[in-house]
Amino acid sequence: MTIAIMGAMPEEIAPILEKVGTYKTTKYAGNTYYEADYQGVGLIIAYSKIGKVFSTLTATTMCEHFGATTLLFSGVAGAISPKLKIGDLIVATKLAQHDLDITAFGHPFGYVPEGAVYVEADKELIALSKEVAKEMGKNVQEGIIATGDQFVADEKRKNWIGETFHADALEMEGASVAVVCDALDVPFFILRAISDAADMDASFSFDEFLETSAVESAEFIMKMVDKL
Amino acid sequence: MTIAIMGAMPEEIAPILEKVGTYKTTKYAGNTYYEADYQGVGLIIAYSKIGKVFSTLTATTMCEHFGATTLLFSGVAGAISPKLKIGDLIVATKLAQHDLDITAFGHPFGYVPEGAVYVEADKELIALSKEVAKEMGKNVQEGIIATGDQFVADEKRKNWIGETFHADALEMEGASVAVVCDALDVPFFILRAISDAADMDASFSFDEFLETSAVESAEFIMKMVDKL
Ligand SMILES: N[C@@H](CCSC[C@H]1O[C@H](O)[C@H](O)[C@@H]1O)C(=O)O
Ligand SMILES: N[C@@H](CCSC[C@H]1O[C@H](O)[C@H](O)[C@@H]1O)C(=O)O
Repeated sequence: MTIAIMGAMPEEIAPILEKVGTYKTTKYAGNTYYEADYQGVGLIIAYSKIGKVFSTLTATTMCEHFGATTLLFSGVAGAISPKLKIGDLIVATKLAQHDLDITAFGHPFGYVPEGAVYVEADKELIALSKEVAKEMGKNVQEGIIATGDQFVADEKRKNWIGETFHADALEMEGASVAVVCDALDVPFFILRAISDAADMDASFSFDEFLETSAVESAEFIMKMVDKL
Repeated sequence: MTIAIMGAMPEEIAPILEKVGTYKTTKYAGNTYYEADYQGVGLIIAYSKIGKVFSTLTATTMCEHFGATTLLFSGVAGAISPKLKIGDLIVATKLAQHDLDITAFGHPFGYVPEGAVYVEADKELIALSKEVAKEMGKNVQEGIIATGDQFVADEKRKNWIGETFHADALEMEGASVAVVCDALDVPFFILRAISDAADMDASFSFDEFLETSAVESAEFIMKMVDKL
Protein backbone atom coordinates (compact mmCIF):
# COMPACT_ATOMS: atom_id res chain seq x y z
CA MET A 1 0.00 0.00 0.00
CA THR A 2 1.20 3.49 -0.89
CA ILE A 3 -0.84 6.36 0.50
CA ALA A 4 -0.87 9.66 -1.35
CA ILE A 5 -1.38 12.72 0.82
CA MET A 6 -2.18 15.70 -1.29
CA GLY A 7 -2.83 19.39 -0.73
CA ALA A 8 -3.15 22.30 -3.13
CA MET A 9 -0.89 24.84 -1.43
CA PRO A 10 2.42 24.62 0.48
CA GLU A 11 0.63 25.57 3.69
CA GLU A 12 -1.64 22.56 3.37
CA ILE A 13 1.14 19.97 3.35
CA ALA A 14 3.70 21.71 5.60
CA PRO A 15 2.18 20.31 8.81
CA ILE A 16 2.15 16.84 7.24
CA LEU A 17 5.81 16.98 6.28
CA GLU A 18 6.64 18.24 9.74
CA LYS A 19 4.86 15.30 11.34
CA VAL A 20 6.48 12.81 8.93
CA GLY A 21 9.94 14.21 9.68
CA THR A 22 12.15 12.30 7.24
CA TYR A 23 11.45 12.06 3.53
CA LYS A 24 13.03 11.84 0.11
CA THR A 25 12.45 14.81 -2.21
CA THR A 26 11.93 14.22 -5.93
CA LYS A 27 11.28 16.80 -8.64
CA TYR A 28 8.88 15.40 -11.21
CA ALA A 29 6.25 16.64 -13.63
CA GLY A 30 6.75 20.26 -12.67
CA ASN A 31 6.24 19.53 -8.98
CA THR A 32 8.05 18.40 -5.87
CA TYR A 33 7.11 15.02 -4.43
CA TYR A 34 8.03 13.80 -0.96
CA GLU A 35 8.35 10.07 -0.37
CA ALA A 36 8.45 8.66 3.13
CA ASP A 37 8.36 5.37 4.94
CA TYR A 38 6.14 6.33 7.86
CA GLN A 39 5.60 3.70 10.53
CA GLY A 40 5.96 1.00 7.89
CA VAL A 41 3.58 2.63 5.41
CA GLY A 42 4.75 4.16 2.13
CA LEU A 43 3.67 7.78 1.75
CA ILE A 44 3.83 10.06 -1.27
CA ILE A 45 3.13 13.68 -0.40
CA ALA A 46 2.73 16.77 -2.60
CA TYR A 47 0.88 20.01 -3.09
CA SER A 48 -0.46 20.35 -6.60
CA LYS A 49 -0.71 24.14 -6.90
CA ILE A 50 -4.16 25.71 -7.01
CA GLY A 51 -7.05 24.60 -9.22
CA LYS A 52 -8.59 21.77 -11.17
CA VAL A 53 -5.91 21.26 -13.83
CA PHE A 54 -2.90 21.16 -11.51
CA SER A 55 -4.75 18.95 -9.02
CA THR A 56 -5.78 16.54 -11.78
CA LEU A 57 -2.19 16.34 -12.99
CA THR A 58 -0.79 15.76 -9.51
CA ALA A 59 -3.37 13.17 -8.50
CA THR A 60 -2.80 11.27 -11.75
CA THR A 61 0.97 11.45 -11.33
CA MET A 62 0.77 10.22 -7.73
CA CYS A 63 -1.17 7.16 -8.89
CA GLU A 64 0.47 6.47 -12.26
CA HIS A 65 4.06 7.37 -11.53
CA PHE A 66 4.40 6.98 -7.75
CA GLY A 67 2.06 4.02 -7.42
CA ALA A 68 -0.39 5.47 -4.89
CA THR A 69 -3.15 3.00 -4.01
CA THR A 70 -5.15 5.28 -1.69
CA LEU A 71 -5.40 9.06 -1.80
CA LEU A 72 -6.13 11.44 1.07
CA PHE A 73 -6.59 15.15 0.39
CA SER A 74 -6.02 17.66 3.15
CA GLY A 75 -6.82 21.34 2.81
CA VAL A 76 -9.05 24.31 3.47
CA ALA A 77 -12.41 25.37 2.03
CA GLY A 78 -15.03 28.06 2.06
CA ALA A 79 -18.22 27.28 3.98
CA ILE A 80 -21.62 27.30 2.33
CA SER A 81 -23.57 25.61 5.13
CA PRO A 82 -24.12 28.03 8.04
CA LYS A 83 -23.32 25.10 10.34
CA LEU A 84 -19.68 25.21 9.26
CA LYS A 85 -17.54 27.69 11.19
CA ILE A 86 -13.88 28.64 10.81
CA GLY A 87 -11.66 25.66 11.66
CA ASP A 88 -14.49 23.11 11.40
CA LEU A 89 -13.78 19.93 9.45
CA ILE A 90 -15.89 18.67 6.57
CA VAL A 91 -15.57 15.22 5.00
CA ALA A 92 -16.80 15.03 1.40
CA THR A 93 -19.42 12.35 0.76
CA LYS A 94 -19.48 13.30 -2.92
CA LEU A 95 -18.10 16.09 -5.06
CA ALA A 96 -19.17 18.08 -8.12
CA GLN A 97 -17.61 20.68 -10.43
CA HIS A 98 -19.73 23.82 -10.03
CA ASP A 99 -18.16 25.66 -12.97
CA LEU A 100 -18.59 22.93 -15.59
CA ASP A 101 -21.29 24.18 -17.91
CA ILE A 102 -22.45 22.81 -21.23
CA THR A 103 -26.05 23.62 -20.35
CA ALA A 104 -26.37 25.17 -23.83
CA PHE A 105 -26.88 21.55 -24.98
CA GLY A 106 -29.57 20.80 -22.41
CA HIS A 107 -27.30 19.08 -19.88
CA PRO A 108 -27.44 19.87 -16.14
CA PHE A 109 -24.70 21.98 -14.57
CA GLY A 110 -21.62 19.92 -13.70
CA TYR A 111 -22.34 17.27 -16.34
CA VAL A 112 -20.60 16.25 -19.54
CA PRO A 113 -21.39 13.14 -21.61
CA GLU A 114 -19.91 9.92 -20.14
CA GLY A 115 -19.21 11.79 -16.92
CA ALA A 116 -21.39 12.29 -13.84
CA VAL A 117 -22.39 15.37 -11.85
CA TYR A 118 -21.23 13.75 -8.59
CA VAL A 119 -18.33 11.44 -7.77
CA GLU A 120 -18.64 9.59 -4.47
CA ALA A 121 -15.77 9.32 -2.02
CA ASP A 122 -14.75 5.93 -0.62
CA LYS A 123 -17.22 4.69 1.99
CA GLU A 124 -14.64 2.76 4.03
CA LEU A 125 -12.41 5.78 4.38
CA ILE A 126 -15.44 7.84 5.46
CA ALA A 127 -16.28 5.14 8.04
CA LEU A 128 -12.69 5.24 9.26
CA SER A 129 -12.89 9.01 9.61
CA LYS A 130 -15.85 8.58 11.97
CA GLU A 131 -13.75 6.38 14.24
CA VAL A 132 -10.96 8.91 14.19
CA ALA A 133 -13.33 11.77 14.92
CA LYS A 134 -14.69 9.86 17.89
CA GLU A 135 -11.25 9.08 19.28
CA MET A 136 -10.14 12.68 18.85
CA GLY A 137 -13.40 13.95 20.35
CA LYS A 138 -13.91 16.08 17.25
CA ASN A 139 -17.17 17.04 15.65
CA VAL A 140 -16.62 16.32 11.96
CA GLN A 141 -19.41 17.07 9.51
CA GLU A 142 -20.12 15.19 6.30
CA GLY A 143 -21.39 16.90 3.20
CA ILE A 144 -21.19 17.65 -0.47
CA ILE A 145 -18.20 19.63 -1.70
CA ALA A 146 -18.36 21.74 -4.87
CA THR A 147 -15.17 22.50 -6.77
CA GLY A 148 -14.42 25.18 -9.33
CA ASP A 149 -11.56 27.17 -10.76
CA GLN A 150 -12.67 30.38 -9.10
CA PHE A 151 -12.02 31.54 -5.56
CA VAL A 152 -15.57 32.44 -4.57
CA ALA A 153 -15.90 35.61 -2.53
CA ASP A 154 -19.49 36.43 -3.39
CA GLU A 155 -22.62 35.61 -1.44
CA LYS A 156 -24.79 35.30 -4.55
CA ARG A 157 -22.50 32.84 -6.35
CA LYS A 158 -22.00 30.87 -3.16
CA ASN A 159 -25.75 30.56 -2.63
CA TRP A 160 -26.25 29.49 -6.25
CA ILE A 161 -23.64 26.75 -5.81
CA GLY A 162 -25.25 25.69 -2.54
CA GLU A 163 -28.69 25.43 -4.13
CA THR A 164 -27.63 23.92 -7.45
CA PHE A 165 -25.36 21.22 -6.04
CA HIS A 166 -26.72 20.96 -2.45
CA ALA A 167 -23.14 21.73 -1.53
CA ASP A 168 -21.97 22.48 2.02
CA ALA A 169 -18.50 23.77 1.20
CA LEU A 170 -16.52 24.87 -1.81
CA GLU A 171 -12.92 24.78 -2.88
CA MET A 172 -10.82 24.40 -6.02
CA GLU A 173 -9.43 20.85 -6.20
CA GLY A 174 -11.62 18.19 -4.60
CA ALA A 175 -13.88 17.18 -7.48
CA SER A 176 -11.01 16.99 -9.96
CA VAL A 177 -9.06 14.68 -7.64
CA ALA A 178 -12.27 12.66 -7.29
CA VAL A 179 -12.58 12.26 -11.07
CA VAL A 180 -9.00 10.97 -11.30
CA CYS A 181 -9.32 8.49 -8.44
CA ASP A 182 -12.66 7.27 -9.74
CA ALA A 183 -11.15 6.65 -13.19
CA LEU A 184 -8.08 4.91 -11.79
CA ASP A 185 -10.04 2.94 -9.18
CA VAL A 186 -8.10 4.43 -6.29
CA PRO A 187 -10.10 4.88 -3.05
CA PHE A 188 -10.02 8.53 -2.02
CA PHE A 189 -10.95 10.79 0.87
CA ILE A 190 -11.30 14.59 0.77
CA LEU A 191 -11.05 16.53 4.03
CA ARG A 192 -11.26 20.28 4.34
CA ALA A 193 -11.09 22.68 7.27
CA ILE A 194 -13.06 25.89 6.88
CA SER A 195 -10.98 29.02 6.23
CA ASP A 196 -13.71 31.44 5.14
CA ALA A 197 -17.38 31.80 4.29
CA ALA A 198 -17.02 32.41 0.53
CA ASP A 199 -18.51 35.87 1.04
CA MET A 200 -17.32 39.45 0.62
CA ASP A 201 -14.68 38.98 3.32
CA ALA A 202 -13.49 35.60 2.07
CA SER A 203 -10.02 36.60 0.91
CA PHE A 204 -9.20 38.30 4.22
CA SER A 205 -10.60 35.42 6.23
CA PHE A 206 -8.68 32.98 4.03
CA ASP A 207 -5.39 34.78 4.59
CA GLU A 208 -6.02 34.90 8.32
CA PHE A 209 -7.07 31.29 8.85
CA LEU A 210 -5.29 29.36 6.07
CA GLU A 211 -2.48 28.14 8.31
CA THR A 212 -4.44 27.23 11.42
CA SER A 213 -7.20 25.56 9.43
CA ALA A 214 -4.65 23.67 7.32
CA VAL A 215 -3.16 22.32 10.57
CA GLU A 216 -6.59 21.14 11.75
CA SER A 217 -7.07 19.21 8.55
CA ALA A 218 -3.52 17.81 8.46
CA GLU A 219 -3.65 16.54 12.05
CA PHE A 220 -6.85 14.67 11.33
CA ILE A 221 -5.44 13.16 8.12
CA MET A 222 -2.35 11.90 9.97
CA LYS A 223 -4.56 10.18 12.55
CA MET A 224 -6.24 8.43 9.65
CA VAL A 225 -2.88 7.37 8.26
CA ASP A 226 -2.11 5.80 11.67
CA LYS A 227 -5.12 3.53 11.16
CA LEU A 228 -4.52 2.53 7.53
CA MET B 1 8.82 8.03 -30.61
CA THR B 2 5.20 7.55 -29.63
CA ILE B 3 2.78 10.19 -30.86
CA ALA B 4 -0.40 10.84 -28.89
CA ILE B 5 -3.34 12.05 -30.94
CA MET B 6 -6.04 13.38 -28.71
CA GLY B 7 -9.53 14.79 -29.12
CA ALA B 8 -12.24 15.60 -26.61
CA MET B 9 -15.26 13.98 -28.29
CA PRO B 10 -15.76 10.76 -30.28
CA GLU B 11 -16.43 12.81 -33.43
CA GLU B 12 -13.00 14.41 -33.13
CA ILE B 13 -11.04 11.16 -33.27
CA ALA B 14 -13.34 9.09 -35.54
CA PRO B 15 -11.73 10.40 -38.75
CA ILE B 16 -8.30 9.67 -37.30
CA LEU B 17 -9.16 6.07 -36.43
CA GLU B 18 -10.66 5.66 -39.88
CA LYS B 19 -7.48 6.84 -41.52
CA VAL B 20 -5.29 4.65 -39.27
CA GLY B 21 -7.39 1.58 -40.06
CA THR B 22 -5.94 -1.06 -37.74
CA TYR B 23 -5.43 -0.54 -34.04
CA LYS B 24 -5.46 -2.26 -30.68
CA THR B 25 -8.17 -1.15 -28.24
CA THR B 26 -7.38 -0.91 -24.52
CA LYS B 27 -9.70 0.18 -21.71
CA TYR B 28 -7.75 2.13 -19.13
CA ALA B 29 -8.35 4.88 -16.59
CA GLY B 30 -12.03 5.14 -17.43
CA ASN B 31 -11.30 5.65 -21.13
CA THR B 32 -10.68 3.75 -24.33
CA TYR B 33 -7.21 4.02 -25.85
CA TYR B 34 -6.31 3.00 -29.39
CA GLU B 35 -2.73 1.94 -30.11
CA ALA B 36 -1.48 1.67 -33.66
CA ASP B 37 1.68 1.15 -35.59
CA TYR B 38 1.13 3.62 -38.40
CA GLN B 39 3.73 3.68 -41.15
CA GLY B 40 6.39 2.72 -38.65
CA VAL B 41 5.35 5.28 -36.03
CA GLY B 42 3.70 4.33 -32.73
CA LEU B 43 0.42 6.12 -32.18
CA ILE B 44 -1.75 6.33 -29.08
CA ILE B 45 -5.19 7.79 -29.82
CA ALA B 46 -8.06 8.73 -27.50
CA TYR B 47 -10.84 11.21 -26.84
CA SER B 48 -10.80 12.46 -23.28
CA LYS B 49 -14.44 13.47 -22.84
CA ILE B 50 -15.26 17.17 -22.58
CA GLY B 51 -13.52 19.67 -20.34
CA LYS B 52 -10.38 20.54 -18.44
CA VAL B 53 -10.35 17.71 -15.88
CA PHE B 54 -10.94 14.84 -18.29
CA SER B 55 -8.48 16.27 -20.80
CA THR B 56 -5.82 16.69 -18.10
CA LEU B 57 -6.34 13.09 -16.99
CA THR B 58 -6.17 11.72 -20.53
CA ALA B 59 -3.13 13.73 -21.56
CA THR B 60 -1.29 12.69 -18.40
CA THR B 61 -2.25 9.05 -18.92
CA MET B 62 -1.11 9.13 -22.55
CA CYS B 63 2.31 10.35 -21.45
CA GLU B 64 2.75 8.49 -18.14
CA HIS B 65 1.10 5.18 -18.96
CA PHE B 66 1.30 4.90 -22.74
CA GLY B 67 4.67 6.59 -23.12
CA ALA B 68 3.69 9.38 -25.51
CA THR B 69 6.66 11.60 -26.39
CA THR B 70 4.77 14.11 -28.59
CA LEU B 71 1.13 15.13 -28.33
CA LEU B 72 -1.12 16.43 -31.10
CA PHE B 73 -4.63 17.63 -30.27
CA SER B 74 -7.28 17.68 -32.96
CA GLY B 75 -10.71 19.22 -32.48
CA VAL B 76 -13.18 22.03 -32.97
CA ALA B 77 -13.47 25.48 -31.41
CA GLY B 78 -15.56 28.61 -31.28
CA ALA B 79 -14.17 31.62 -33.11
CA ILE B 80 -13.45 34.90 -31.37
CA SER B 81 -11.48 36.54 -34.17
CA PRO B 82 -13.80 37.69 -36.97
CA LYS B 83 -11.16 36.40 -39.40
CA LEU B 84 -12.00 32.81 -38.43
CA LYS B 85 -14.94 31.31 -40.32
CA ILE B 86 -16.62 27.90 -40.00
CA GLY B 87 -14.18 25.15 -41.03
CA ASP B 88 -11.09 27.37 -40.76
CA LEU B 89 -8.09 25.96 -38.95
CA ILE B 90 -6.32 27.66 -36.06
CA VAL B 91 -2.98 26.59 -34.62
CA ALA B 92 -2.43 27.61 -30.99
CA THR B 93 0.74 29.60 -30.38
CA LYS B 94 -0.07 29.74 -26.67
CA LEU B 95 -3.01 28.89 -24.47
CA ALA B 96 -4.66 30.23 -21.32
CA GLN B 97 -7.45 29.17 -18.96
CA HIS B 98 -10.09 31.90 -19.20
CA ASP B 99 -12.15 30.63 -16.24
CA LEU B 100 -9.31 30.40 -13.72
CA ASP B 101 -9.91 33.22 -11.28
CA ILE B 102 -8.24 33.95 -7.97
CA THR B 103 -8.32 37.67 -8.71
CA ALA B 104 -9.66 38.18 -5.18
CA PHE B 105 -5.98 37.90 -4.16
CA GLY B 106 -4.78 40.47 -6.67
CA HIS B 107 -3.62 37.99 -9.33
CA PRO B 108 -4.47 38.40 -13.02
CA PHE B 109 -7.15 36.22 -14.60
CA GLY B 110 -5.79 32.81 -15.61
CA TYR B 111 -2.98 32.88 -13.06
CA VAL B 112 -2.25 30.85 -9.94
CA PRO B 113 1.03 30.92 -7.95
CA GLU B 114 3.82 28.85 -9.58
CA GLY B 115 1.76 28.68 -12.76
CA ALA B 116 1.62 31.02 -15.75
CA VAL B 117 -1.23 32.70 -17.60
CA TYR B 118 0.01 31.33 -20.94
CA VAL B 119 1.64 28.05 -21.92
CA GLU B 120 3.44 28.09 -25.28
CA ALA B 121 3.03 25.32 -27.81
CA ASP B 122 6.09 23.67 -29.34
CA LYS B 123 7.76 25.91 -31.93
CA GLU B 124 9.06 23.06 -34.10
CA LEU B 125 5.62 21.53 -34.41
CA ILE B 126 4.21 24.93 -35.34
CA ALA B 127 6.94 25.30 -37.98
CA LEU B 128 6.08 21.84 -39.30
CA SER B 129 2.41 22.84 -39.53
CA LYS B 130 3.38 25.72 -41.80
CA GLU B 131 5.05 23.31 -44.22
CA VAL B 132 1.99 21.08 -44.15
CA ALA B 133 -0.35 24.02 -44.73
CA LYS B 134 1.73 25.06 -47.70
CA GLU B 135 1.74 21.59 -49.22
CA MET B 136 -2.00 21.23 -48.72
CA GLY B 137 -2.61 24.72 -50.07
CA LYS B 138 -4.50 25.57 -46.87
CA ASN B 139 -4.71 28.90 -45.15
CA VAL B 140 -4.01 28.08 -41.51
CA GLN B 141 -4.11 30.88 -38.95
CA GLU B 142 -2.04 31.07 -35.79
CA GLY B 143 -3.36 32.55 -32.60
CA ILE B 144 -4.04 32.39 -28.92
CA ILE B 145 -6.55 29.83 -27.71
CA ALA B 146 -8.50 30.30 -24.47
CA THR B 147 -9.84 27.27 -22.63
CA GLY B 148 -12.55 27.01 -20.01
CA ASP B 149 -15.05 24.56 -18.58
CA GLN B 150 -18.00 26.37 -20.09
CA PHE B 151 -19.37 26.10 -23.61
CA VAL B 152 -19.54 29.80 -24.46
CA ALA B 153 -22.63 30.87 -26.39
CA ASP B 154 -22.68 34.49 -25.40
CA GLU B 155 -21.28 37.46 -27.29
CA LYS B 156 -20.44 39.40 -24.13
CA ARG B 157 -18.47 36.60 -22.49
CA LYS B 158 -16.72 35.82 -25.76
CA ASN B 159 -15.65 39.43 -26.18
CA TRP B 160 -14.41 39.57 -22.60
CA ILE B 161 -12.29 36.47 -23.21
CA GLY B 162 -10.99 37.94 -26.46
CA GLU B 163 -9.99 41.20 -24.78
CA THR B 164 -8.64 39.75 -21.55
CA PHE B 165 -6.50 37.01 -23.12
CA HIS B 166 -6.06 38.41 -26.67
CA ALA B 167 -7.59 35.11 -27.67
CA ASP B 168 -8.65 34.24 -31.21
CA ALA B 169 -10.62 31.08 -30.45
CA LEU B 170 -12.02 29.27 -27.45
CA GLU B 171 -12.66 25.70 -26.50
CA MET B 172 -12.64 23.45 -23.44
CA GLU B 173 -9.45 21.34 -23.41
CA GLY B 174 -6.44 23.00 -25.05
CA ALA B 175 -4.90 24.89 -22.14
CA SER B 176 -5.23 21.95 -19.76
CA VAL B 177 -3.44 19.66 -22.21
CA ALA B 178 -0.81 22.39 -22.52
CA VAL B 179 -0.25 22.48 -18.76
CA VAL B 180 0.27 18.71 -18.68
CA CYS B 181 2.69 18.62 -21.62
CA ASP B 182 4.61 21.57 -20.26
CA ALA B 183 5.00 19.86 -16.88
CA LEU B 184 6.03 16.53 -18.43
CA ASP B 185 8.28 18.14 -21.03
CA VAL B 186 6.36 16.65 -23.95
CA PRO B 187 6.24 18.81 -27.10
CA PHE B 188 2.61 19.53 -28.00
CA PHE B 189 0.52 21.01 -30.77
CA ILE B 190 -3.12 22.14 -30.54
CA LEU B 191 -5.16 22.40 -33.74
CA ARG B 192 -8.80 23.39 -33.92
CA ALA B 193 -11.25 23.82 -36.77
CA ILE B 194 -13.98 26.39 -36.22
CA SER B 195 -17.45 24.99 -35.50
CA ASP B 196 -19.22 28.12 -34.25
CA ALA B 197 -18.80 31.75 -33.30
CA ALA B 198 -19.36 31.39 -29.53
CA ASP B 199 -22.45 33.58 -29.88
CA MET B 200 -26.19 33.13 -29.36
CA ASP B 201 -26.35 30.55 -32.14
CA ALA B 202 -23.25 28.64 -31.06
CA SER B 203 -24.92 25.41 -29.96
CA PHE B 204 -26.85 25.08 -33.23
CA SER B 205 -23.79 25.92 -35.31
CA PHE B 206 -21.75 23.46 -33.24
CA ASP B 207 -24.20 20.63 -33.83
CA GLU B 208 -24.29 21.39 -37.54
CA PHE B 209 -20.56 21.71 -38.15
CA LEU B 210 -18.96 19.47 -35.49
CA GLU B 211 -18.42 16.55 -37.85
CA THR B 212 -17.21 18.39 -40.94
CA SER B 213 -14.95 20.69 -38.93
CA ALA B 214 -13.57 17.72 -36.96
CA VAL B 215 -12.64 16.09 -40.29
CA GLU B 216 -10.82 19.26 -41.42
CA SER B 217 -8.73 19.21 -38.27
CA ALA B 218 -8.11 15.44 -38.34
CA GLU B 219 -6.93 15.44 -41.96
CA PHE B 220 -4.42 18.15 -41.20
CA ILE B 221 -3.15 16.35 -38.10
CA MET B 222 -2.61 13.13 -40.07
CA LYS B 223 -0.54 15.04 -42.64
CA MET B 224 1.60 16.22 -39.78
CA VAL B 225 1.99 12.67 -38.51
CA ASP B 226 3.27 11.71 -41.98
CA LYS B 227 6.10 14.18 -41.47
CA LEU B 228 7.06 13.25 -37.91
N1 LIG C 1 -3.86 33.15 -1.13
C1 LIG C 1 -3.57 32.57 -2.41
C2 LIG C 1 -4.81 32.14 -3.15
C3 LIG C 1 -5.63 31.09 -2.52
S1 LIG C 1 -6.90 30.43 -3.58
C4 LIG C 1 -7.73 29.38 -2.50
C5 LIG C 1 -7.21 27.98 -2.20
O1 LIG C 1 -7.86 27.54 -1.05
C6 LIG C 1 -9.16 27.23 -1.52
O2 LIG C 1 -9.99 26.76 -0.59
C7 LIG C 1 -8.87 26.40 -2.75
O3 LIG C 1 -8.90 25.03 -2.52
C8 LIG C 1 -7.54 26.93 -3.20
O4 LIG C 1 -6.56 25.98 -3.23
C9 LIG C 1 -2.82 33.57 -3.27
O5 LIG C 1 -2.81 34.74 -2.98
O6 LIG C 1 -2.28 33.15 -4.27
N1 LIG D 1 -22.74 18.60 -28.21
C1 LIG D 1 -22.22 18.16 -26.96
C2 LIG D 1 -21.53 19.26 -26.20
C3 LIG D 1 -20.35 19.86 -26.87
S1 LIG D 1 -19.43 20.92 -25.79
C4 LIG D 1 -18.25 21.56 -26.86
C5 LIG D 1 -17.01 20.77 -27.23
O1 LIG D 1 -16.47 21.35 -28.36
C6 LIG D 1 -15.86 22.55 -27.90
O2 LIG D 1 -15.26 23.28 -28.80
C7 LIG D 1 -15.07 22.05 -26.70
O3 LIG D 1 -13.75 21.79 -26.99
C8 LIG D 1 -15.87 20.86 -26.26
O4 LIG D 1 -15.15 19.68 -26.29
C9 LIG D 1 -23.32 17.58 -26.09
O5 LIG D 1 -24.49 17.82 -26.35
O6 LIG D 1 -23.00 16.94 -25.13
